[in-house]
Amino acid sequence: MQKLNATIAAIRPLDKAAMQAARERQDQLTKPRGSLGRLETLSVQLAGILGTPRPRLRDKAVVTMAGDHGVVAEGVSAFPQEVTPQMVYNFLRGGAAINVLARHAGARVVVVDMGVAVDLDPHPDLVVKKIGYGTGNIAVEPAMTREQAIAALEAGIEVVEAEVARGLDVLATGDMGIGNTTPSAAIAAAITGRAPGEIVGRGTGLDEVGVARKIGAVQRALAANRPDPYDGVDVLAKVGGFEIGGLAGAILGAAAAGRPVVVDGFISTAAAMIAVSLAPQVRPYLIAAHHSQERGHRIMLDWLGLHPLLNLDLRLGEGTGAALAFHVLDAACAVLNEMATFAEAGVSEEIEKTEKEGRILEA
Amino acid sequence: MQKLNATIAAIRPLDKAAMQAARERQDQLTKPRGSLGRLETLSVQLAGILGTPRPRLRDKAVVTMAGDHGVVAEGVSAFPQEVTPQMVYNFLRGGAAINVLARHAGARVVVVDMGVAVDLDPHPDLVVKKIGYGTGNIAVEPAMTREQAIAALEAGIEVVEAEVARGLDVLATGDMGIGNTTPSAAIAAAITGRAPGEIVGRGTGLDEVGVARKIGAVQRALAANRPDPYDGVDVLAKVGGFEIGGLAGAILGAAAAGRPVVVDGFISTAAAMIAVSLAPQVRPYLIAAHHSQERGHRIMLDWLGLHPLLNLDLRLGEGTGAALAFHVLDAACAVLNEMATFAEAGVSEEIEKTEKEGRILEA
Repeated sequence: MQKLNATIAAIRPLDKAAMQAARERQDQLTKPRGSLGRLETLSVQLAGILGTPRPRLRDKAVVTMAGDHGVVAEGVSAFPQEVTPQMVYNFLRGGAAINVLARHAGARVVVVDMGVAVDLDPHPDLVVKKIGYGTGNIAVEPAMTREQAIAALEAGIEVVEAEVARGLDVLATGDMGIGNTTPSAAIAAAITGRAPGEIVGRGTGLDEVGVARKIGAVQRALAANRPDPYDGVDVLAKVGGFEIGGLAGAILGAAAAGRPVVVDGFISTAAAMIAVSLAPQVRPYLIAAHHSQERGHRIMLDWLGLHPLLNLDLRLGEGTGAALAFHVLDAACAVLNEMATFAEAGVSEEIEKTEKEGRILEA
Repeated sequence: MQKLNATIAAIRPLDKAAMQAARERQDQLTKPRGSLGRLETLSVQLAGILGTPRPRLRDKAVVTMAGDHGVVAEGVSAFPQEVTPQMVYNFLRGGAAINVLARHAGARVVVVDMGVAVDLDPHPDLVVKKIGYGTGNIAVEPAMTREQAIAALEAGIEVVEAEVARGLDVLATGDMGIGNTTPSAAIAAAITGRAPGEIVGRGTGLDEVGVARKIGAVQRALAANRPDPYDGVDVLAKVGGFEIGGLAGAILGAAAAGRPVVVDGFISTAAAMIAVSLAPQVRPYLIAAHHSQERGHRIMLDWLGLHPLLNLDLRLGEGTGAALAFHVLDAACAVLNEMATFAEAGVSEEIEKTEKEGRILEA
């Protein structure tokens, strides 16, 4: 609990002077003001997070956390639980979508066992922070104890602290866990107060009957556990998951270290909701990568006040959308750092002239 | 006219066998079917365009075409016409947004003078295909003659033929031309039959009075010139622009050579409408990069039946959105080429088992 509290206490507001300097530079670059839209606002946000008017993202990692879920007993997933460890091995061999997309973005993948239901074969690249062998079945019991929830959060912080020690500039979150859209939907329903039917989606490919069964499981999870929506640790313990707790901790740890967090899809967004419940000041450190195909994602993003960068109909998780979003962040930094100013390009006089004529407007 | 007709005649349907093979491979990769959304459909489209089940985009170019517009006399732009050549020089020096974003995407920028109002200083990287010194003021007269329109289209084809000879795998379109959102809006209004007020936007930063003036200019352009909506050459000649004609030709040339075309924003989309008017079979070769902030862009994309990949509130042009979209195309190819199959990853048996149980559904 001490690490968690110290981490939360270490999260500072963004650096306003760096943001102001970045904003002023954007307005001197050879383009109409504001014409690069989100690339401009993103560059200013990154300046504020990293505390420099000229941010660069050299060292990138996708932290992909794995865990299993007792709620699979309710028939809420199209895939059997054995796929969780199989996909972890696939990550470690480099054959999964996240490996391909992280490589393409110049990022490393950090694979963490937060609570897979079996012991995994040791591997030099596997970080083991196992809190338990899968969670309890939330439809009838808590996912975990409050102590386990805190341990999961603190394990996530530790993972990011190690990455920051390696030079991390930007964190992306990712997940793997058969059944984990169900606890994520339960978290979203608990915190927003919206009905499970508005949030539960098809996951990896449920049919209508499966979705109805999943909605029922979330309803029973909320009724059986009564999570306190104002206590993020309680929500995590009652209806969460080990990898979700780890990701929430990683988000807090990154913000405490002054690093931006690219939040992947549905599961990562549930983790971000836990993190923001615990520490609202984490919010400006978050960048929503994409709008997932999973049903309630928009409600969750709205609660967080986040506007996703991409809308590519993804619904895979693993951190795939976040890895794709790294390109947009890099582009935002490149524009800020590499474009010529009006003065450098000799376009300044005309702009000044037209500004004097009152024909140029703020974007 | 002969080159134009020969180019249009050379545009073939996509390669169905390559698309089928790419689709089958996507379904064997270690992810739920369809879970990578647009990355999957894009990879299949690229397979069909390039005629290979395993497409790769090694050689990329953004063709940024510049031209001036007589309609600036109507006060339709926030910037003076002198900015067109100044920005061309900025492109040639590498200081503009398109240079930064193309470099970031591993693409070259091909700068073409299609009709800037002044003679530009010679530069080894400047392609000169000047059709005229700016167009006529479309509010009162045709932009150009029918012969000039055909010459602009054929010049665009020549530019792409030269790029294909250099090894081009994928083309992106870009534009520079003070005032060119006005002819683009006129093209869109002429072809779709929608009212100018639904299409005209702020361009680089007009205020409400300026927008009203611009709507009036487009209305007068349509009334004075009466472009035939079913004749793309007539629309281009009456209310288009030299760089728009060049881009339409480049799009046709790329499709004829079996290369995908990433269409940038408002102006490039107007060029794509001219190209599709001339040759509807060009449509499957098009990939819309982004949804521009410019007002009527959605109407234009809908007419083309295109769904943009990105929505980053861009409104700069130059090819900037298209350069950003290159990353998504590369990611789509990387997924198809580099991910492990279920068989390779040892995840196959479980999937087969669950498929037999009827629990897996098509995405």
